[in-house]
Parts: sequence; structure tokens; C-alpha cells
Amino acid sequence: MKDFTIVSNIVIRRMTRYRRALNDLLKGGVRVISSANLGNLINHAASQIREDLNHFGAFGLKGYGYNVEWLYHQINVILGLDNNYKMIIVGTDNLGQAIANYTHFYQSGFDTVALFDLSSELIGLRINDIKVFDFHNIDEYLKRNQIDIGIIATNKESAQGVADKLIEGGVLGIWNFAPADLIVPDDVAIENMHLSHSLHILSCQINQNSVGVDLRKSS
Amino acid sequence: MKDFTIVSNIVIRRMTRYRRALNDLLKGGVRVISSANLGNLINHAASQIREDLNHFGAFGLKGYGYNVEWLYHQINVILGLDNNYKMIIVGTDNLGQAIANYTHFYQSGFDTVALFDLSSELIGLRINDIKVFDFHNIDEYLKRNQIDIGIIATNKESAQGVADKLIEGGVLGIWNFAPADLIVPDDVAIENMHLSHSLHILSCQINQNSVGVDLRKSS
Repeated sequence: MKDFTIVSNIVIRRMTRYRRALNDLLKGGVRVISSANLGNLINHAASQIREDLNHFGAFGLKGYGYNVEWLYHQINVILGLDNNYKMIIVGTDNLGQAIANYTHFYQSGFDTVALFDLSSELIGLRINDIKVFDFHNIDEYLKRNQIDIGIIATNKESAQGVADKLIEGGVLGIWNFAPADLIVPDDVAIENMHLSHSLHILSCQINQNSVGVDLRKSS
Repeated sequence: MKDFTIVSNIVIRRMTRYRRALNDLLKGGVRVISSANLGNLINHAASQIREDLNHFGAFGLKGYGYNVEWLYHQINVILGLDNNYKMIIVGTDNLGQAIANYTHFYQSGFDTVALFDLSSELIGLRINDIKVFDFHNIDEYLKRNQIDIGIIATNKESAQGVADKLIEGGVLGIWNFAPADLIVPDDVAIENMHLSHSLHILSCQINQNSVGVDLRKSS
């Protein structure tokens, strides 16, 4: 059992930024960093960083700073990155394939072990050396294999049904790329990647930047 | 010129959720909805919805509710979705291709008009009927074509250099998929889609759900 308290998603989001900065520092051979310098790197106040890290125990040494390697390791533990996760992806069009590719090359500790689709043209193929299974057999697959994370890369209409099957099959978390708000039990983690929301936020920002000047309307 | 005030990204994020719910209602033939019912649909308090919408003018009619079609249209205007955006994607591996595919099929008003890459194997090809150009020629391309949004789907190391070229070429906003925090001027909109952050937030949630029980460690 780990002795940290439940913290908000906002703190967790900052943790992922700290982690990335620390990783860069490690690669650059930096061994110790003050909260002020860490703050400069990621545009956060030193006080914010100290407060966030204090959630998880007093990591810094006054007048000395943080040991980069140790702090990096601690944040990995906080983020659950010291575990290995077995993942499957449901939906194997370009997006599903991009996700499989991404996890294969960039994310150690997150292993995509199977893909699922309904298309007879895809079932049986291997994509990035991962086999595509018939979605109709997912119940059976989940009974036989312990899967930690189910990734949904289907259309909106299919997403909740897929989520229900994944949850029934015992996944601990769902990474949802479908543009749908899914209903999941409290003990199942869920994280949404809504491309359309992100794009609309961008267009809204562009629009707000243009307030007071002529809005460019392309035809 | 539009007469709304600059609001926070958090409000904008909720707006994108309202928009999706209203779109579903429209498709279902619903013409009027109260803030309470809209709130139920998206798990927000009615008071929150009224407050958000009041930022942009008093849309609701007391005792009557919101005209769904009109509100949907207003939110589109707020989000800048009544404009058309010309986009280019830099980096055309699976992720770049998935984005091109996504914008092609799911996002009217956001037209991807060109792809850029450094790979001689890809330059000259058409992906989803969009031509892949040599990234070395992007300055010239941006001089000749008015591009609103530049999408970065490169690796982390290349991302800032690509962003600089896009900004120099006059894009209004950057949709960044590279795992890097980019430095952009205040008048250029930026929205990040950090896959790794999202995945780490998910693993952290899973970890937090497992506090107090044995953590599953897959070997």
C-alpha cells in the first residue's frame, strides 16, 4: 500500500509536467534543482511546486533543493508509472492504429497486447505486431487475460457499449477517445481525450484573440 | 466584431460540453430545454449553466427555458465554429494521418489542406487526398496560402522549431500533439493534446483507486 492521499486531477496534471521537466534535467545531467528553478522551467511559482510536492511528503531540503533523480522516481510512483499496464484497444482505424503506435514506441510500462474490431477485413491481421481480434469475442478474451486499461477508439455511438464490456471484463481504467461522456462505476478510472473539444477550445481562443479586429472568414 | 468578453478556458471547456448535449437534443427533435434538464444531461448544476451562459448575454427565458437550436447556434458563434479554418499538419506518421482522417470525416469547418514531412518516401504522396509537401518549403507555402491553424504532430525535439515557422508564416493558432510545452506569442492561440499526460493521469487514478488494496503488478 502506498501512503499518499487522494489529490485532485489538477495537481496530477501538474505532476505530469514536473515529471517531464525532471526527465529533461536528468538527461542533461542535472542532479539537484531548487523549486524556484524548477518553477522557471515549467512556468509555475516555486510556492505552487512546494505545495504540490508536500501533498506527498516533504521532498525538498531547505537551502539545498530537490534531488532530481529521487524526485523523478517519487513522481513516477505517485503517477503509478512504476507499475506495468496491459492494455487493449477497441477500434482499429487510423486513430486506434496511431494509439497503438504511440504506446509501442513512446510509453514503456504500457503494453498494448491486443486490438479489437468488427471489420472482417481487419480481424486476424497484425498491426505493429499486435493481433486484431474479433470484438464479438472480447468477453472470452477478458476472462482469460488480465487487462488493466481498455482504450476506446470507436465512434460515439458504440462507445458506452464497449465501455460496459470492458468494465464487465475487469479493466481498472478506460482511456476514452470517443466523443462521448461515458458512465463508469466509481472504482473504474476514466480519462477522456476529446479531440473535438480540444479543437473547439482552440477555435474559441482564436476567435477571442480576434475580438476587436476583423475576423478572418475564409470562404 | 463580436460582443462577448474574454472568458476562462474552464468555461470554454464546459461550453464544448453544452454544445455536444445540445447537438444530441437537436438530433432528437427537442426544441426547448430548461437549464435544470440540460444540467442533468451533462452532470452540471443548473446554476452553473445559467452563470456560464450569462457571460455571453441572457439567453434563457424564465419559466420557458432555452431554445435549443438558437442556443446551439450561439454557442457555435462563441466557440468560433461559424468560421472556416484552413489547417496544415506537420508530421505525417500514424498520428498525423489519424488527425487528418479525423478532421476530414468529423469536423466540418476545419479543412486540412496540406501535410508536411521531411521523409522523401512520403513527400509527393496523397493521404486522405491531401498532398504531402516537403517541410523545407513550408515558408514559401505559408507566404502563398493563408493558413489559420498549424497542427504539430512531430516528435518533441522538432516541435518548437516547427511552431516558430508556423508563427512566422502567420497562423492564428497551433494545435500541438508533440509532448513539448511550446513558447508562442500572446496573440497566437495554442491548445495542447498531450497523450502522455493523459495516460499518466489515468495510471495515477488507477493507482489511487488501488490504495488500500493490493496493487496489481503485472510482470
